[in-house]
Amino acid sequence: MAGPTLDFWYEFASTYSYPAAMRIERLAAERGVGLRWRPFLLGPIFRAQGWSDTPFNVLPAKGANMWRDLERITAWDGLPFRRPDPFPQHSVLAARTALALADDARPAFTRAVYAAEFGEGKQISDRAVIAALLAAQGHDAETTLARAESGENKDRLKAQTQIAVDAGVYGAPSFVAADGELFWGNDRLEQAIDWAAARG
Amino acid sequence: MAGPTLDFWYEFASTYSYPAAMRIERLAAERGVGLRWRPFLLGPIFRAQGWSDTPFNVLPAKGANMWRDLERITAWDGLPFRRPDPFPQHSVLAARTALALADDARPAFTRAVYAAEFGEGKQISDRAVIAALLAAQGHDAETTLARAESGENKDRLKAQTQIAVDAGVYGAPSFVAADGELFWGNDRLEQAIDWAAARG
Repeated sequence: MAGPTLDFWYEFASTYSYPAAMRIERLAAERGVGLRWRPFLLGPIFRAQGWSDTPFNVLPAKGANMWRDLERITAWDGLPFRRPDPFPQHSVLAARTALALADDARPAFTRAVYAAEFGEGKQISDRAVIAALLAAQGHDAETTLARAESGENKDRLKAQTQIAVDAGVYGAPSFVAADGELFWGNDRLEQAIDWAAARG
Repeated sequence: MAGPTLDFWYEFASTYSYPAAMRIERLAAERGVGLRWRPFLLGPIFRAQGWSDTPFNVLPAKGANMWRDLERITAWDGLPFRRPDPFPQHSVLAARTALALADDARPAFTRAVYAAEFGEGKQISDRAVIAALLAAQGHDAETTLARAESGENKDRLKAQTQIAVDAGVYGAPSFVAADGELFWGNDRLEQAIDWAAARG
């Protein structure tokens, strides 16, 4: 990509990745910032920290306020919102599929997964749900899913997750500028784009 | 207080409470929102969750990015910043002292403590540091500290912390509107003031 770029690291189970995914392209385009859409898995990172579940489930007060905060944010952004059940959703199939797509097809598929999960309450661990989303975007679902579930693509997702860790990522969404500057959270998206736009 | 109000819950050891404390009065005044400055202790809340330290120390990647984020925020807000050592600071004396002051003296003392701690790297657990801050604001330091360390005031701080927990508070800074709506984090301050201003 010519010009400033920003890596957008997202996890399909992550609540705050939903509003970030829905607005990042517009914000980046306004500032001439190119995006790399980089799905990864938080599960292995959490497990390496000794966590077996998200803090939003482990800490009830924190979880309750996160859901309320997300209601307020999605209402403000004009996004539909339904709390997924179960939460967190198993996100590995969606992440593998997003990664298996061409770079220019990944953003639209990513938004479709988040809209299905957090807007309609669909089960993104369900192969049929992912297949329908692929088909709706003109992809051959079975071919894409076969590529997503190949050993090579599984390894590629593991490698992506390691790249995220090496970049300092510990949560999602995260944004990493070309100079390595890391911003965590949907509420830091504007700052991250300002940083990338100013420093190229 | 007549008109809309907002409870400002802060912990003197909390990094993000620093920028919040330094800007909340201006933002609230602009919208006609009255503030209740409510110091409390996060330590007992963390310990009840089974934590013996802040996640910023337990999780190195999260901690590193928090410090970087705080550098960016304080630079943006034009606030001096020095990382306290040790971190977190023992905050109980500062919290007791803030609580022992009259309501109209608490905001200025609170800001002075944060400025000393995060702007100058002073030890806020040091009785002499707190005494000097009190004296600089025209308080009789020894009288105030004696009141701060009275059994009655210690109990009052414990009760405050329980009120915070009952309001759903699990981190600092937090903002609670008169209708119970809870906002967590310096980055939710504007939303909290909007909420209070709109709903009275």
